[in-house]
Amino acid sequence: MGSRSRVNLTYICKMNTKPTLHTILSPKLLDIYDVTNSIVVIIDVFRATSTIATALYNGAAKVIPVDTVDKCIELGKKTGGITAGERDGKVIEGLEHGNSPAEYPKEFIDGKTLVLTTTNGTKLLHMALQSGASEVITGSFPNLSAVCDHLIQQNKNVILGCSAWKDRFNLEDTLFAGAVISRIKNNFTIHCDSSLMAENMYTLHQPDLKAFIRNTTHWHRLAQYGLEKDLEYCVTPDQANILPFYKDGDLIIA
Amino acid sequence: MGSRSRVNLTYICKMNTKPTLHTILSPKLLDIYDVTNSIVVIIDVFRATSTIATALYNGAAKVIPVDTVDKCIELGKKTGGITAGERDGKVIEGLEHGNSPAEYPKEFIDGKTLVLTTTNGTKLLHMALQSGASEVITGSFPNLSAVCDHLIQQNKNVILGCSAWKDRFNLEDTLFAGAVISRIKNNFTIHCDSSLMAENMYTLHQPDLKAFIRNTTHWHRLAQYGLEKDLEYCVTPDQANILPFYKDGDLIIA
Repeated sequence: MGSRSRVNLTYICKMNTKPTLHTILSPKLLDIYDVTNSIVVIIDVFRATSTIATALYNGAAKVIPVDTVDKCIELGKKTGGITAGERDGKVIEGLEHGNSPAEYPKEFIDGKTLVLTTTNGTKLLHMALQSGASEVITGSFPNLSAVCDHLIQQNKNVILGCSAWKDRFNLEDTLFAGAVISRIKNNFTIHCDSSLMAENMYTLHQPDLKAFIRNTTHWHRLAQYGLEKDLEYCVTPDQANILPFYKDGDLIIA
Repeated sequence: MGSRSRVNLTYICKMNTKPTLHTILSPKLLDIYDVTNSIVVIIDVFRATSTIATALYNGAAKVIPVDTVDKCIELGKKTGGITAGERDGKVIEGLEHGNSPAEYPKEFIDGKTLVLTTTNGTKLLHMALQSGASEVITGSFPNLSAVCDHLIQQNKNVILGCSAWKDRFNLEDTLFAGAVISRIKNNFTIHCDSSLMAENMYTLHQPDLKAFIRNTTHWHRLAQYGLEKDLEYCVTPDQANILPFYKDGDLIIA
């Protein structure tokens, strides 16, 4: 075979190679995967990434995700931003606002900086950056379509990263991963049992997601604080359809 | 209220308290859970725990699970046992037999000791012992009913431990966890998204398990070595319905 035929064959093989997609069910499982040069989607459905999408959609200049209350207060002073964070459904002492997307309508958040302390989501985000991800974005049902459109356009390897709850598998993040997979799977090579399971779970419960999430452990943890409406919003697609993109410590609209 | 009433109330509350059940989707997630005083079920469907149940059912005196080839050879010499282990569908150099349940019929294994080197299952087994489990048993579809009956009888907290594949979530172990949960859930308190997912996945695919497993990553890994019949056996319930129980380094029939 001449060199010209070899070149053509290589070209054809490259044309047929789709990027890979994997789903990670807990931050503890991130280091098993090669994250280098991948887009990592941070998923924290109840409620960090839902709140991030909503605040940016409603005009927030940026959201700064931090992992401790002290950093939140410090950055709030430094940036003049709104400090926010909850533990057990209540605003943390020393901060101004909570983790609810409903707290950030346009008339309140437009043009402002939100400094948000979350545990699970922020931890995974920093792990992904340290692992050599080429890009970190955040995903949630409120910005489902924006995430899917971006992943298809970029044509790079993808890691769907579920933030979980204190490293424990959770259903709501998995359902969002499944929603993404069900939309974009034809554009990716997927050899990943986590992804197959996530898509199965989404397809099974998609017809009645708001009812099904009442069975999750996180629902039981949060619903006692009267957050039912909040949680239902967090599984409703495309209510805040922008793409939060991480750059130099900030989440901004891509 | 008098002291007698208080005693009665305490008694009634205790009577109503069911033991807990959790499912662990990867050995990496074991240390998030309190394993102390729990029964841990080691699950490695393709194929270690299926082979263990089958060998013991067919009369093996005991199965010694080890994590390295060197230990396997050493213990084989010491005990006069049969050494067994595979990598990539082939018997490991220096060992006598493979990981297939079909290699251990009664006429071959009766009365003998099997020294079996496995990676995923043995690793999780040792982790469970170090974590303070009160009892370690092994579970697989071939001994599904024996596992379920035992867990109901014991009335203790349960951890269903999926061995996974190099710490990656796998579907076949999850499906077995789901099969157990679907049978015994009324006897346990289950606040665990992994368990709810596992049961959902089992219920969804139980009508055609042999077809569904052809979608798993492990099927694709092993089927290329002509192991299809082996894998189908490994998802067939109650073909070797005994209970392997770990004691002093050995797995024996409880």
